[in-house]
Amino acid sequence: MIQRPRGTRDFGPADMAKRRKIEHGMRQACARFGFGEVMTPTFEHSELFTLRSGQGIVDEMYIFKDKGDREMALRPEITASVIRFFVNEMSTAPRPLKLYYVGNCFRYENPQSGRYREFFQLGAELVGSKNPETDAEVIALAINCIRSAGLETYVVRIGHIGVLKSLVNDEVKDPKVAAEILRMIDKEDWDALGDMFDARALPRQLFDKITALADIKGEPELLNNLDQSEAADYLKEVFSVLKLYGIEDAQVDLGIVRGLDYYTGMVFEIDAPRLGAEKQILGGGSYTLSELFGGEPVFSTGFAIGIDRVLLAVEAERQIETGAPLDAYVIPAKEDMRKYAFGIVARLRSQGLRADVDLMRRSLSKNLKYASSAGARFAVIVGKDEMAKRSVTLRDMKSGEQNVVLADEVSSEIAKRLV
Amino acid sequence: MIQRPRGTRDFGPADMAKRRKIEHGMRQACARFGFGEVMTPTFEHSELFTLRSGQGIVDEMYIFKDKGDREMALRPEITASVIRFFVNEMSTAPRPLKLYYVGNCFRYENPQSGRYREFFQLGAELVGSKNPETDAEVIALAINCIRSAGLETYVVRIGHIGVLKSLVNDEVKDPKVAAEILRMIDKEDWDALGDMFDARALPRQLFDKITALADIKGEPELLNNLDQSEAADYLKEVFSVLKLYGIEDAQVDLGIVRGLDYYTGMVFEIDAPRLGAEKQILGGGSYTLSELFGGEPVFSTGFAIGIDRVLLAVEAERQIETGAPLDAYVIPAKEDMRKYAFGIVARLRSQGLRADVDLMRRSLSKNLKYASSAGARFAVIVGKDEMAKRSVTLRDMKSGEQNVVLADEVSSEIAKRLV
Repeated sequence: MIQRPRGTRDFGPADMAKRRKIEHGMRQACARFGFGEVMTPTFEHSELFTLRSGQGIVDEMYIFKDKGDREMALRPEITASVIRFFVNEMSTAPRPLKLYYVGNCFRYENPQSGRYREFFQLGAELVGSKNPETDAEVIALAINCIRSAGLETYVVRIGHIGVLKSLVNDEVKDPKVAAEILRMIDKEDWDALGDMFDARALPRQLFDKITALADIKGEPELLNNLDQSEAADYLKEVFSVLKLYGIEDAQVDLGIVRGLDYYTGMVFEIDAPRLGAEKQILGGGSYTLSELFGGEPVFSTGFAIGIDRVLLAVEAERQIETGAPLDAYVIPAKEDMRKYAFGIVARLRSQGLRADVDLMRRSLSKNLKYASSAGARFAVIVGKDEMAKRSVTLRDMKSGEQNVVLADEVSSEIAKRLV
Repeated sequence: MIQRPRGTRDFGPADMAKRRKIEHGMRQACARFGFGEVMTPTFEHSELFTLRSGQGIVDEMYIFKDKGDREMALRPEITASVIRFFVNEMSTAPRPLKLYYVGNCFRYENPQSGRYREFFQLGAELVGSKNPETDAEVIALAINCIRSAGLETYVVRIGHIGVLKSLVNDEVKDPKVAAEILRMIDKEDWDALGDMFDARALPRQLFDKITALADIKGEPELLNNLDQSEAADYLKEVFSVLKLYGIEDAQVDLGIVRGLDYYTGMVFEIDAPRLGAEKQILGGGSYTLSELFGGEPVFSTGFAIGIDRVLLAVEAERQIETGAPLDAYVIPAKEDMRKYAFGIVARLRSQGLRADVDLMRRSLSKNLKYASSAGARFAVIVGKDEMAKRSVTLRDMKSGEQNVVLADEVSSEIAKRLV
């Protein structure tokens, strides 16, 4: 038996209904914020991703050669593609550009719980503006997406990469060592960081400053205790615009470094605490990427949401209701009502109902069983007597209640009861 | 400058709005017919596709090796994946299963007009039933999808692979030669077929029979002139169920062979004549595939629609209207109204409107220009006098008409005028 590739998934109708419901909620949030959808290719020249994140990411990428012997990669993320698209075709469009995407990404790693080789992201990029209200707008959209997906319990943490970056870069001469330090901060691996400071005889005072800064997590008022005034003032303004947007529960977290690749200022993350170790469902911040791809430098702010994790988080809170998959299932009670039944199902469909009809020439009782397993809300039974009176029996599959109704009025009867 | 890979595309917001509109119409049709969405991985073990279509398809597939050195392929089509999913996980589910998908496929060929290396399909598979009403149901869904996409001019051609297949297989001993003949019929390459008959000294009478059969195209009544009664009777029943569904304009076309890979009976195609040489927008038929993937033999009927071509075909008929991308753009007339403006945009969004706000600290006139280029239906201008009266100026960006309205009533005023 041929199996699906390891680390990938198949989704059946019940799963897809849930996924589409959550995706739809997030798309609506993007539309309300004036973001327009874009779509880029599933694979790109691999340098699009390696230029930014270094050769390290290659181990985790699906790579293959083009007919022209060019190296292609299945996208590990979509931000780079959106910015490439911007540089190629949208650099002269009126700014800011507000773009969002929904798509699949690929990571060539050993599958484990909550991590898949093909996974799904929704993300947004606001291109061509840099100030606190731009960052606040993007954070507000991120929170609105999460809420519109139906998640009730989440934690928004906002930081500024400039605080720790400037501290480390000012005090550590070797840029490789500085990068290594930031990487450990990102992982919150304080033991390893302490060991490194010991091994390299770096000043203990710096270590203490780093851990003190990275430990600033909580109410935005904590920013008032900070030395670095530029970043702190900037973040304070971000929080004040968020307040105007009615967002009062965001926290400050100066320990966020976000893999340190290309962020330039504000960085933020959203967690769903119920998910435990894999609790981060969203990450973002302000960045510049366009000059790396051959464009002029342009400031952007964006985020990416892990759709798979949002779904897990919502389901950890409650069942996702998607309703009955079928409004009506039409059953000819006997062979000679079959043709009549096709006419009825065609009419129900043309009136917008989701309707099905017996295609297996089954008995009434088998058809009722199938209607139930297919999740039909109503069965429409076409019997001989009813047919003579141009009517049908309408059976509520939940309550079992039955009524004879005119064939012409089936769909309005069903619509009435569906409300 | 990094470019996107050759043969792939980027889609901006205006393109995506059109694509999503057409896709949404087709999804609604699937739902009305009781089909549930499924999703399978973007790549599969390559044998899933080669088993069925032979090594020939390998040249057109994107292939790469897994970490476990297994050969993977980006899917060239999605039917094989759906049937694999069925065999793996749904073989005991109540039948028939009605499944549809929307997804991207990949073909490693030289890009040319209307053919892309990444392209998009919507398809449906009805699994576990085989009779004329099942085939009619699937054809009816296909036609409904095309209509729901908004296409008005199309041609539905229905044939039966059994007619030509049994004729050729009965008369030609060598299965390779028989397959070659069917391939030429599929391409309607009558000159090459004639040459082959001459070269191999095949009976001219067979050639004449083949061309006569393949030439039976038009009104379903042509079926009455046929010898092969089993297939003809079957097709007649298909046409009679279609009539019950209100579908009267389908034609018969016994020349359809559909690449001859795995179809077993009814085959059908839909063309959009305006597209010229690349006019086929849909192909389908009844088939068995499951036993190839290690399952028991199960009859299915399905089709796949080329979304890219449907879009081209609809656009050849008329412009696709997607409406204004933004309901309102909020403009603070001066710096000190900025905060007030954020409150207003937040309220409009919470009331379900698609609203944006100045993030670039621009002047009123520049903001009005941006509102126009961003396609906003209304501008909401927050001036000093208005702010004092808790009101705003509402400007219709189409007519230029302006009114002062209470801030609390902006969204209801806009909603009223959007109707």
